[in-house]
Amino acid sequence: MAATLPPDIGTPLADVETPALMLDLDAFERNLAHMARTAAAANIRLRPHAKSHKCAEIARRQMALGAVGVCCQKVSEAEALIDGGVTDVLVSNEVVDPPKLRRLAALAERATVAVCVDDERVVPLLPTPLDVLVEIDVGGNRCGIAPGEPALRLAERIANTPNLRFGGLHAYQGAAQHIRSPVDRANAAARAAHAAAHTADLLRAHGIPCNLITGGGSGTYQFDITSGVYTEIQPGSYIFMDADYARNESPPPFEHSLFVYTQVMSAPGHGYVVVDAGLKASAVDSGMPTVDGCPMVSYTRASDEHGVLTGGTFRLRDKLRLVPGHCDPTVNLYDYYVAIRDGRVEAIWPVDARGALT
Amino acid sequence: MAATLPPDIGTPLADVETPALMLDLDAFERNLAHMARTAAAANIRLRPHAKSHKCAEIARRQMALGAVGVCCQKVSEAEALIDGGVTDVLVSNEVVDPPKLRRLAALAERATVAVCVDDERVVPLLPTPLDVLVEIDVGGNRCGIAPGEPALRLAERIANTPNLRFGGLHAYQGAAQHIRSPVDRANAAARAAHAAAHTADLLRAHGIPCNLITGGGSGTYQFDITSGVYTEIQPGSYIFMDADYARNESPPPFEHSLFVYTQVMSAPGHGYVVVDAGLKASAVDSGMPTVDGCPMVSYTRASDEHGVLTGGTFRLRDKLRLVPGHCDPTVNLYDYYVAIRDGRVEAIWPVDARGALT
Repeated sequence: MAATLPPDIGTPLADVETPALMLDLDAFERNLAHMARTAAAANIRLRPHAKSHKCAEIARRQMALGAVGVCCQKVSEAEALIDGGVTDVLVSNEVVDPPKLRRLAALAERATVAVCVDDERVVPLLPTPLDVLVEIDVGGNRCGIAPGEPALRLAERIANTPNLRFGGLHAYQGAAQHIRSPVDRANAAARAAHAAAHTADLLRAHGIPCNLITGGGSGTYQFDITSGVYTEIQPGSYIFMDADYARNESPPPFEHSLFVYTQVMSAPGHGYVVVDAGLKASAVDSGMPTVDGCPMVSYTRASDEHGVLTGGTFRLRDKLRLVPGHCDPTVNLYDYYVAIRDGRVEAIWPVDARGALT
Repeated sequence: MAATLPPDIGTPLADVETPALMLDLDAFERNLAHMARTAAAANIRLRPHAKSHKCAEIARRQMALGAVGVCCQKVSEAEALIDGGVTDVLVSNEVVDPPKLRRLAALAERATVAVCVDDERVVPLLPTPLDVLVEIDVGGNRCGIAPGEPALRLAERIANTPNLRFGGLHAYQGAAQHIRSPVDRANAAARAAHAAAHTADLLRAHGIPCNLITGGGSGTYQFDITSGVYTEIQPGSYIFMDADYARNESPPPFEHSLFVYTQVMSAPGHGYVVVDAGLKASAVDSGMPTVDGCPMVSYTRASDEHGVLTGGTFRLRDKLRLVPGHCDPTVNLYDYYVAIRDGRVEAIWPVDARGALT
């Protein structure tokens, strides 16, 4: 059960209780359409990352506009999305625990499912039949086997295992997405693409077809689609455009569509006001939220249930919109989106995979 | 519905799927008992803060050991706790929106409920009958009216409103709790107590009884109970003892009882391993988690679903316990506690007020 009941459809914005996770539908739809057009024009597959939205309704809308499927990071996310009618999910992450792998096998009977591997010791644990991608470390220094020979050996091991199908290379450079300088960001993306291309060539030279090279995010997709290497991109945040992506120089061309709606709950009159959205309402791992439309106002301090705003002229009980510093973990704090158009609640969309950690 | 099904009672620890919010029952119970004994010995009322645990089962256990009730920060938290059988809740925060105040009034028909006010403009909005505390700013620079004359005028306004009952002073100094130096922490607590005592004396001099002065947290309660000022303390985190409280010099005398159970999902062999608990599994606003029992290991980097550990000898698929940097927002990421004793799951406790934001 949701901890807080959602507002009725048609409720005026001013009457929505705070804090609420608010989606501006017009901006959201423009973001969706722009990325769909961009991928189509580049003749590259689009597989948006559902870790950002965790919402089957949004995943279905992305696929209706041409996305081949979605990515997610956890088996339980895939379960929630497939339960919600999504038909094609790549778990763009390693799954190493046999109970989770059994859940993955059950999903593969209901939908197109693939998973990543970066360690040959996991191969004997994988259920069959299953599509398996080799994740290579293209500079993120997180998961992923080394490109080149190590990746080749792992791909051969998969290809030689009955009923496992080598699906391609997973080559996501997470650390590149938020590099502020566009030149440095382009260089990091180019190094990732080079490592992926080199590995794919090696696989092909050893008789292993490598038709899928997937990766890229909202910060690098413009470079990735022109790389000539990636055949699929995985942007997630483009649909919402959080404050941290907006801090990139030459930020990606998307509009803020996701907001935390909040209210001034205390106005003690010392040059600041206190809003009712703290760090349990807007994730602060990538910096404080910004105040939508108020560049001179700073959200200076977050505690669990309070946020301090300085530099504004807000009054007690005013309601306003924050742009979350980081959309993915912010969405994960809510049970539903309050989808707004023309100043009223048009829809309530559940965050189906909220808290889907395993 | 929980995004992930809980393990069966009796499941061995090694078979619990990760990430999981794990409660060490023995340590937890010792923490509960220690604070209950301490408050009883000091003859001070204990009203633990339920914002930390959001769990009716834990609130009931605290009250069974002598707590007079609990605090919470949001009306929806109070709803979840009262639905779970808690009979006495102070909303230790301002509530300023009429729909929320109506929900508060409905709660007051089912349980003992009080709320804080720091602005006279809210008084006409308050439902009656209700117990109302005046929150004073005792150095936290967040909510709260100024101590002394301004607080007196607000208390008079409440006391003179039919069917509102002035309940006392709320004097919580949140900023003091994590001051590292015990001397500086004691001084901040003393200044808070002084401001509260001065205000209470002023109220009494004007014929307003002030029998309740409530405040204090897990970082300052040792000073608060000997202040001669506070009649009630509100510690929350003492039951769990997060990594950030452990970083205080002369930290409060509690054991870590709350853990994020996690698994090594990738071991690429460059001096680090990657675990499956990132910032959606363990809040990082107050610093990274620590690795329980492994002071030489560092959790150096959190992304949404990954954590990087350096300095250890962990192997692929090892499971281990993280001590969250900050327990309150970490608990809020989970649907239930996995309560462990003697290496097995003894109970599953729902996080009743998870996501209770309004």
